[in-house]
Amino acid sequence: RLVLGTGQGTRDHPPAQAALRDRLLSTVVSCFKRHGAAAIDTPVLELRETLMGKYGEDTKLIYELQDQRGELLALRYDLTVPFARYLAMNKITNIKRYHIAKVYRRDNPATTRGRYREFYQCDFDIAGQFDPMIPDAECLKIVHEILSDLQLGDFVIKVNDRRILNGVFAVCGVPENKFITACSTVDKLDKVPWEEVRSEMVGEKGLSPEAADRIGEYVQLHGGLDLIEQLLQDPKLSQNKLAKEGLSDMKLLFEYLTLFGITGKISFDLSLARGLDYYTGVIFEAVLLQQENEHVEELVGVGSVAGGGRYDGLVGMFDPKGRKVPCVGVSIGIERIFSILEQRLKASGEKLRTTETQVLVATPHKQLLAARLKLISELWDAGIKAEMLYKKDPKLLKQLQYCEDTGIPLAAIVGEQELADGVVKLRDVSTREEVRV
Amino acid sequence: RLVLGTGQGTRDHPPAQAALRDRLLSTVVSCFKRHGAAAIDTPVLELRETLMGKYGEDTKLIYELQDQRGELLALRYDLTVPFARYLAMNKITNIKRYHIAKVYRRDNPATTRGRYREFYQCDFDIAGQFDPMIPDAECLKIVHEILSDLQLGDFVIKVNDRRILNGVFAVCGVPENKFITACSTVDKLDKVPWEEVRSEMVGEKGLSPEAADRIGEYVQLHGGLDLIEQLLQDPKLSQNKLAKEGLSDMKLLFEYLTLFGITGKISFDLSLARGLDYYTGVIFEAVLLQQENEHVEELVGVGSVAGGGRYDGLVGMFDPKGRKVPCVGVSIGIERIFSILEQRLKASGEKLRTTETQVLVATPHKQLLAARLKLISELWDAGIKAEMLYKKDPKLLKQLQYCEDTGIPLAAIVGEQELADGVVKLRDVSTREEVRV
Repeated sequence: RLVLGTGQGTRDHPPAQAALRDRLLSTVVSCFKRHGAAAIDTPVLELRETLMGKYGEDTKLIYELQDQRGELLALRYDLTVPFARYLAMNKITNIKRYHIAKVYRRDNPATTRGRYREFYQCDFDIAGQFDPMIPDAECLKIVHEILSDLQLGDFVIKVNDRRILNGVFAVCGVPENKFITACSTVDKLDKVPWEEVRSEMVGEKGLSPEAADRIGEYVQLHGGLDLIEQLLQDPKLSQNKLAKEGLSDMKLLFEYLTLFGITGKISFDLSLARGLDYYTGVIFEAVLLQQENEHVEELVGVGSVAGGGRYDGLVGMFDPKGRKVPCVGVSIGIERIFSILEQRLKASGEKLRTTETQVLVATPHKQLLAARLKLISELWDAGIKAEMLYKKDPKLLKQLQYCEDTGIPLAAIVGEQELADGVVKLRDVSTREEVRV
Repeated sequence: RLVLGTGQGTRDHPPAQAALRDRLLSTVVSCFKRHGAAAIDTPVLELRETLMGKYGEDTKLIYELQDQRGELLALRYDLTVPFARYLAMNKITNIKRYHIAKVYRRDNPATTRGRYREFYQCDFDIAGQFDPMIPDAECLKIVHEILSDLQLGDFVIKVNDRRILNGVFAVCGVPENKFITACSTVDKLDKVPWEEVRSEMVGEKGLSPEAADRIGEYVQLHGGLDLIEQLLQDPKLSQNKLAKEGLSDMKLLFEYLTLFGITGKISFDLSLARGLDYYTGVIFEAVLLQQENEHVEELVGVGSVAGGGRYDGLVGMFDPKGRKVPCVGVSIGIERIFSILEQRLKASGEKLRTTETQVLVATPHKQLLAARLKLISELWDAGIKAEMLYKKDPKLLKQLQYCEDTGIPLAAIVGEQELADGVVKLRDVSTREEVRV
């Protein structure tokens, strides 16, 4: 039996997909560079222990390798934990970096609808002790720029703060050891109605019905500066130290976002919780509001296309002395955006070129391979992107057909006459105009 | 115990290294695109069976993952076998593609001197049934272009053909089942003298001393077109069908390389064997001849910086009906070239910028954060690469120092006066010249 396939949840990217992905990534990288980020690279293979205890329940999704003579290795689950490991290991306390690379999650095939086990992440992070909310505001600006640059349609960036959420839980009477679990339940509010979330809180998570109801009043709120002011006046919440800190910082954040001119797309949303354990402050998530094309919506689903937040404690988990390096970062949901662009391209019928060849070196009759080889070599040496057919005596029609099929705009034709005159006939493939040069 | 490290033979690439690598890769990719190649991407995770039986003895170096509920996965060992699997799986019979990605080899730590277990490969391949030696010649042209573009110093590209080698073994009396093992012994000739190779042949490999001596007469030959002509007249070799085919094709190859104007750097070298099992025709390897800098030579070692060849049987191994797709390809030894460039950069004392920031937005006194945020936002929106310090009230000196440290050429300074006049003071960091704009 001959096995011919790829592993579950992994896939090849043929040229058309790879070209679209390149185009998408170059938009994202341009933005990261515009904001002064440097590139770094970390291994796909990490020590197993580096990844353990960082992802809560999802730790079970980590791919592990067979024991390498006592060295236990695993495939990275995201780019954030390796980044924190890198900072702690090299005692770096100040960096702005981006990293685009594949990560690995052994997601349950049953739950894997349009989700992959090997996929790209696209991260930008700012590490360092700075004045509050300035780097956080830049992360939101970056999300705004990228989603605008990619012309994905209307979007909103939901913002919240883990400290505000924890304050809400505290004033609603949730015991502190249930904050994280309450958080992950609230996180479902973007997919299911409050009633369902409430019953999970009261049932599975064991909160009192009164606490759940009180939480419900808060987490269904969303708005802008008004809401922040209102909550700062809230008799209960304003008494909670963490919530107050979070709300003051949120106010500052909105001030900065106003200067950036992007508050129109920002929503302070108390239902936003984000799954990961390591967030400690601001959290955010960008959602596409609608697709201009119904067909696309159906296939891809409208959902989160970027997210991130502040994680001030993660680096400290790797430092022998627990020294903290405050970090805030954003991850662009490149796979989802890629699916949207791919569907859109398909719907438009546009064909993306997979190569950049400018000219095909062609001959109108036989016995001219030497002339083609000589000319193409000169073109390459001059930095021109050129191809020729790998046949000794190809028909001219075949050569021109190749141009049409692959989108090569020009053909440089050398025949006996051209050779004798020391010229080349340059033909515009689409207009069929020819000039001798 | 806190574990803080990376796995054996893996490493992080901090910004300076990542920037150098980006520069290097962009030179290589430019060349691949100049020759009309499309990008493809295949998974790092391959089915274990895809990789088995393709690498001879080196199969033991493949990293295997823990059983995923019956799915046995492994990390790719190179990009060539996954490429062949991709072609067979999608029934592609004609493509020119490049692929730059990491591969994994569980090399013995003892033998790992400057070799990594996770490293980049950089491959260009042409698949399809074409007239002989045209794509093969292009692969050599590509190696020539890349090594020239990178200004690595003088180099030579050794060329041979597996059919010629097999012909040599046949006429020297080596039994056919010992061709591959004889091949791998000959392959050592670039590192050890003939005497040692001979004794391995006679000892370990069990060839007769006479056969070994006869082989020795051939494999120590190298030259150009003259040598090809001479061997075509060789009374024994010219009687061997395979050798004759190989020699005629080699002659054709030299004809094409002459048209490309690159025979000056090409050496037909009968000692070149190349380790991998799957080669079936032309094989080649580029070697740097000398370093302009002795220090570099010592640290990095002068060795192969590119290699490749023709493998017409590999795709057929994946096709249920064994249909063959002829392929020829080249792999650029990016890790070795990277080490050379890195050492050279270090020796030169030059500091490579890790970011591309064009301007730092700065303020000369306090209370101007809002002005900075407004200005930088305008710059970003205009596509200008801009940074600012993440402090509310940074000292001007600190801001200018940051420019000098990170190589930012310009500072855009806004103070009360500039705000009142509606201008910005643009300062050239190195000359200290200032203009108001």
